[in-house]
Amino acid sequence: MPQKVRIALDAMGGDHGPSVVVPGAALALEQHPDSIFMLVGDRAKIEPLLDAHPRLKAVSRLVHTDVAVRMDDKPSQALRNGRWKSSMWLAIDAVKKGEADVAVSAGNTGALMAMAKFNLKTLPGIERPVIAALWPTLKRSSVVLDLGASIGADAESLVDMAVMGSAMARVLYGLDRPSVGLLNIGVEEVKGLEPVREAARMLRENPPPHIDYIGFVEGDDIGRGKADVVVTEGFAGNIALKTAEGTARQFAEYLKDAISQSIWSKIGYLLARPAFRMLRDKMDPRKSNGGVFLGLNGVVIKSHGGTDPEGFAAAIDMGFNMVRYELLAKIGETIHSHTRLSAEARAAGGAAS
Amino acid sequence: MPQKVRIALDAMGGDHGPSVVVPGAALALEQHPDSIFMLVGDRAKIEPLLDAHPRLKAVSRLVHTDVAVRMDDKPSQALRNGRWKSSMWLAIDAVKKGEADVAVSAGNTGALMAMAKFNLKTLPGIERPVIAALWPTLKRSSVVLDLGASIGADAESLVDMAVMGSAMARVLYGLDRPSVGLLNIGVEEVKGLEPVREAARMLRENPPPHIDYIGFVEGDDIGRGKADVVVTEGFAGNIALKTAEGTARQFAEYLKDAISQSIWSKIGYLLARPAFRMLRDKMDPRKSNGGVFLGLNGVVIKSHGGTDPEGFAAAIDMGFNMVRYELLAKIGETIHSHTRLSAEARAAGGAAS
Repeated sequence: MPQKVRIALDAMGGDHGPSVVVPGAALALEQHPDSIFMLVGDRAKIEPLLDAHPRLKAVSRLVHTDVAVRMDDKPSQALRNGRWKSSMWLAIDAVKKGEADVAVSAGNTGALMAMAKFNLKTLPGIERPVIAALWPTLKRSSVVLDLGASIGADAESLVDMAVMGSAMARVLYGLDRPSVGLLNIGVEEVKGLEPVREAARMLRENPPPHIDYIGFVEGDDIGRGKADVVVTEGFAGNIALKTAEGTARQFAEYLKDAISQSIWSKIGYLLARPAFRMLRDKMDPRKSNGGVFLGLNGVVIKSHGGTDPEGFAAAIDMGFNMVRYELLAKIGETIHSHTRLSAEARAAGGAAS
Repeated sequence: MPQKVRIALDAMGGDHGPSVVVPGAALALEQHPDSIFMLVGDRAKIEPLLDAHPRLKAVSRLVHTDVAVRMDDKPSQALRNGRWKSSMWLAIDAVKKGEADVAVSAGNTGALMAMAKFNLKTLPGIERPVIAALWPTLKRSSVVLDLGASIGADAESLVDMAVMGSAMARVLYGLDRPSVGLLNIGVEEVKGLEPVREAARMLRENPPPHIDYIGFVEGDDIGRGKADVVVTEGFAGNIALKTAEGTARQFAEYLKDAISQSIWSKIGYLLARPAFRMLRDKMDPRKSNGGVFLGLNGVVIKSHGGTDPEGFAAAIDMGFNMVRYELLAKIGETIHSHTRLSAEARAAGGAAS
């Protein structure tokens, strides 16, 4: 039997704090009985909730702190006020100290990224950490990155993202060589921003192992599931993600309006209810909750701040899988062999010239 | 009675050429009887179609040419082979020569933009033309620009877009001061790309007339209809648009799957059919067909290449409104008074210092 996965939770993070985190952890434990938890936060608030979940309580350790990062703290404020002592910091610090395998927080993204970067530091050869998430598609789902951490990424950063995103897709989908596309505004070589074109050249001419580079993909190819991994700079990635969320919400509103139009449409809805339930399930943002911070010496998962226990459990599930299937080792393996291959390619090029 | 609107059509543009353009024009004429048309293209192909639409024929002039820009021509190829003589060029040229008020083409975007820019030239003070379109929202629709012409726009270009987009919103919605938002990855002042932050500063400190600048908006605010005009650089704008289209298509697929699940869901669908028809109408991309090229000395409308007569008629309708409600004059008015105000502000600043 494999070792237990040790999960550190920022119990105070998110809009609802422990009242979502604790039941969320209880749900995650049902799914992954080989987990153990460390809950960081206000003991007075966490303990009564833990008492209601005796199974979770039996595999949890509670670490008390009074300090919590607020949802509207700026990253600099969060670092100034919350370093060394906030629930967010201590959850990350458990990963740093080797006491936990993964930290999960629903706290504010900027603060979490700043603290994770400050404490864990980036992997050798990686300049900037990025955020990756699962995007539901017509096939299964795709890994999309970066979703807002690397504004204005250069070509090298885009190639790093391809490497890290493909490691994540290997973990999630059990593929050996996930397909990777670069998000662009057309599929022709001549189009798009210079760093995107340059990254395409690098991926074509010197492809890292475990990557099946398939070229440029466009915005509408994401939902089609054309690539297992879609790579983009963080500004465009964040806008794409939020635009898709907005469009899904818009569609859901239209559907609701349409159904309430007449008595016949209401009856029709009742008859087709299982179908609509399936539809709602497919569009359920909770199921794909959990952004993975990639490029750090440790695994940190960001949950949506406004999620419910089921959504928080999905974020924990994401963290569990990243640990169980060795995300960091897979990233390291690809980066190292790629660096070695690049060096060999350069040496061979040098010898030939 | 106002003067007739003179519309030049590239009859050979798009995936289907005259077989969509001619019936599309006939539909548009029903909607706007005060239009007259110039159809440019292969007489042998156009004439039989015109014969089937005698009312359209009565208000149309046919200009023959053998040359047509192909859908896969690169802009440079199109200019080399199609300048002076292609149906696309001649339609634009009619606007240039004052023989038409607007040109509409379903031909390829890059070629159309290159020819329009080469022939019509940009408005004084505008460096790069951009593409604006209507985005269906939960309110009415919003003007979103740029959708792919201005890759990596600087702050000045973003402010120009705000000016031009608000002129378009005045034309379409009859507003005096449309609300304008800058697309960003957060609503805080400190976030996002430098040109976006700089444009925000310019719009706040020296707001052009006829603009109600409301700050940053995020991807999911577009579909909410938070701003009448959403301004973004072309790379992110194109990706946002295509991502939204992809998400809508994904939702439609899920819905279709859901409905075909069981006999009950099929019966439910039949009962609710008028409601579903309403839903389909709301999501119908044909209704918002028509990208407006802004920043040129003339009005040029780009229709989707794969559209049908109804969609092409919507593109003509867009062009008709832009002429009837004097888009160019409104843009000119705002640019001029803004330039004057900026100059006065600078002079006042200079005198004070």
